[in-house]
Amino acid sequence: MKLTIAKNELNQAIQNVAKAISARPTIPILGGIKIDVTHQNVTLTASDTDISIQSFIPVEQNGQIIAEIDKPGSVVLPAKFVVEIVKKLPSDQVSIEVSQHFQTLIQSGSTEIQMVGLDPEDFPVLPSIEQDQVLQVPGELIKSMIRQTVLAASTSEQTPILTGVLWNLQQGELKFTATDRHRLASRVTKVDTDEQFRFSNIVIAAKTLNELYKLIPDQHAPIDIVVTDNQVLFKLDHILFYTRILDGTYPDTSKIIPSVFETEIVLDTKNLMDAMDRAYLMSREEKTNIVRLSTIDNGLIEVSSSSTELGRVTEQIEAIDYKGEQLRIAFNSKYMLDVLKVIDSEKIVACFTGAMRPIIIRPLDHDYCVYVILPYRTTG
Amino acid sequence: MKLTIAKNELNQAIQNVAKAISARPTIPILGGIKIDVTHQNVTLTASDTDISIQSFIPVEQNGQIIAEIDKPGSVVLPAKFVVEIVKKLPSDQVSIEVSQHFQTLIQSGSTEIQMVGLDPEDFPVLPSIEQDQVLQVPGELIKSMIRQTVLAASTSEQTPILTGVLWNLQQGELKFTATDRHRLASRVTKVDTDEQFRFSNIVIAAKTLNELYKLIPDQHAPIDIVVTDNQVLFKLDHILFYTRILDGTYPDTSKIIPSVFETEIVLDTKNLMDAMDRAYLMSREEKTNIVRLSTIDNGLIEVSSSSTELGRVTEQIEAIDYKGEQLRIAFNSKYMLDVLKVIDSEKIVACFTGAMRPIIIRPLDHDYCVYVILPYRTTG
Repeated sequence: MKLTIAKNELNQAIQNVAKAISARPTIPILGGIKIDVTHQNVTLTASDTDISIQSFIPVEQNGQIIAEIDKPGSVVLPAKFVVEIVKKLPSDQVSIEVSQHFQTLIQSGSTEIQMVGLDPEDFPVLPSIEQDQVLQVPGELIKSMIRQTVLAASTSEQTPILTGVLWNLQQGELKFTATDRHRLASRVTKVDTDEQFRFSNIVIAAKTLNELYKLIPDQHAPIDIVVTDNQVLFKLDHILFYTRILDGTYPDTSKIIPSVFETEIVLDTKNLMDAMDRAYLMSREEKTNIVRLSTIDNGLIEVSSSSTELGRVTEQIEAIDYKGEQLRIAFNSKYMLDVLKVIDSEKIVACFTGAMRPIIIRPLDHDYCVYVILPYRTTG
Repeated sequence: MKLTIAKNELNQAIQNVAKAISARPTIPILGGIKIDVTHQNVTLTASDTDISIQSFIPVEQNGQIIAEIDKPGSVVLPAKFVVEIVKKLPSDQVSIEVSQHFQTLIQSGSTEIQMVGLDPEDFPVLPSIEQDQVLQVPGELIKSMIRQTVLAASTSEQTPILTGVLWNLQQGELKFTATDRHRLASRVTKVDTDEQFRFSNIVIAAKTLNELYKLIPDQHAPIDIVVTDNQVLFKLDHILFYTRILDGTYPDTSKIIPSVFETEIVLDTKNLMDAMDRAYLMSREEKTNIVRLSTIDNGLIEVSSSSTELGRVTEQIEAIDYKGEQLRIAFNSKYMLDVLKVIDSEKIVACFTGAMRPIIIRPLDHDYCVYVILPYRTTG
């Protein structure tokens, strides 16, 4: 293998695939990035077996030569070092030459690096995925769906299935759901697909979706999603992102959201978020993050929290609209803050069915997002 | 105590003094910020006994009312919470009222905070410092002297005196010295003072100087420095910064720097820094950070490092000027990088007296800064 390649394009591809490298690889070869060189393109691959990322560099793009291939071939280079060194090379061009026993020579300007490469034959083979049914979703839409749901996924490995986000597709509606049993986030969207195309119980780890989020550009251009029994493949521009589907059955959450409410309050999102943020600062001194919300006269809402050591914060917020019963409820201020931060609407509706029943938060202007927070049982 | 004060000014003063709050205060009162209110100004004080910071808010500035004082008084409020909450208050104005047993009520817009204050009588009294002899140094000069020396201070508490920077003043020349026994940094400057005014063995903790650095604005305006037997006081605009002088005698470093050299090489600072950075990336894989520097023919310098696991980096740099013997020397690449990052000159001179003697690095254009790095004894 021997080639000369533009440093910036090589570096970009390295940074793309590096997101799949584990800090502690289970086998040494997974601490490496596989480089495959043909006369058409240069392909970089990295994997931690849960996720695998491939990034493609065409040898020519828009009439510009990006790589000159002297001899096709493959090698695996240690990721930790390559990720740091390539961007610091002195010249815009980098030449890479692999000789016997995968001895690799990297040259750029007056810098010469000799590295011990690994055998690409030892690198795990990526799953072969049949692409008979492809779902197309605009990149920026997938990003907002990820951002608006991952917050409610569990961070505890005790129930691995809850560390993921559930994907369902039926009748042209794609739905993401996440819950850690204390709160729930769900987001739906219409997608342009055959109504017969459906899947259920596809659960993808929230941390994988966070990595995918960083790779997707903020553009309307659609990305292709291929779903199989145990893998999902995301096809981005010059990037393939493979992820394993989490094992297990996601719990049925359909009955958690009540449909009849005793109290409904419309609030300004930013006002509530700022007040909740201050109440959170006090509440976090106690580990529970408890905040109390009560209706008081004249359409005013009171938010308060206290710490035995520090004192008490009391906030008054004017409701934009208010109907139903008087209310006094306690919940985790951090959970409410997480929700308010990702709702992109100026006003929200908070719906209650008494102090012991789930709290529902949704944007006022649409019902694509629904959030549930379970209240705390408190005395007084 | 009762007053109304502009939020931004109060917040700025809180952030200023908060740098003196320890993450784990030795006594509870030191986890607080003392607020003293008179009809002239509002003074905030924080201390971890090693350093103490006072920040003053005048009740009126440039004809603008900053604070309205209803009733003078004092209170100590818990820093951890106050530092976070004040900047998040909803209104531009904050009113603070202290009643019996230091119960404190903070109001801003529709936010009400009740806090348990502490008795200001329990707060340690700041050292009283006689200001008979004051040293004036421009703020930006003190900052550059700090930045150019703290890197060589020790981070090990085994020899506490070496965690500090030595200050000496004699014959109108102020000198900072720091060393961790493996490297040394020194910086001198002429100061405009009585030639009789002198001090020696004033050692201030590097981490204290780093905090001071952040408080000093990037301005030529001089700051006043008062040195006593066990304290140094820095007088900034509206801020007093007190620090304890480290106990012990700083070792004599005057004989470390050789005056006759066998090899002197002039190099471009950035070229050397970039090459050293790449060599460092390889060398850090071995814990020692060893890099080798050799003179080769035609005024070329070779820098190289290797890792048994990864491979080898070799760099060639053209010397701008070169005189003396051929050379081959090994040293810690991180130490060299630290020096090159703070030398603000485009060219440096590296001076050698053989592979086992100290390496001297200094800017080509002046001799205010001198750095020493001890070489490694290596085989081969």
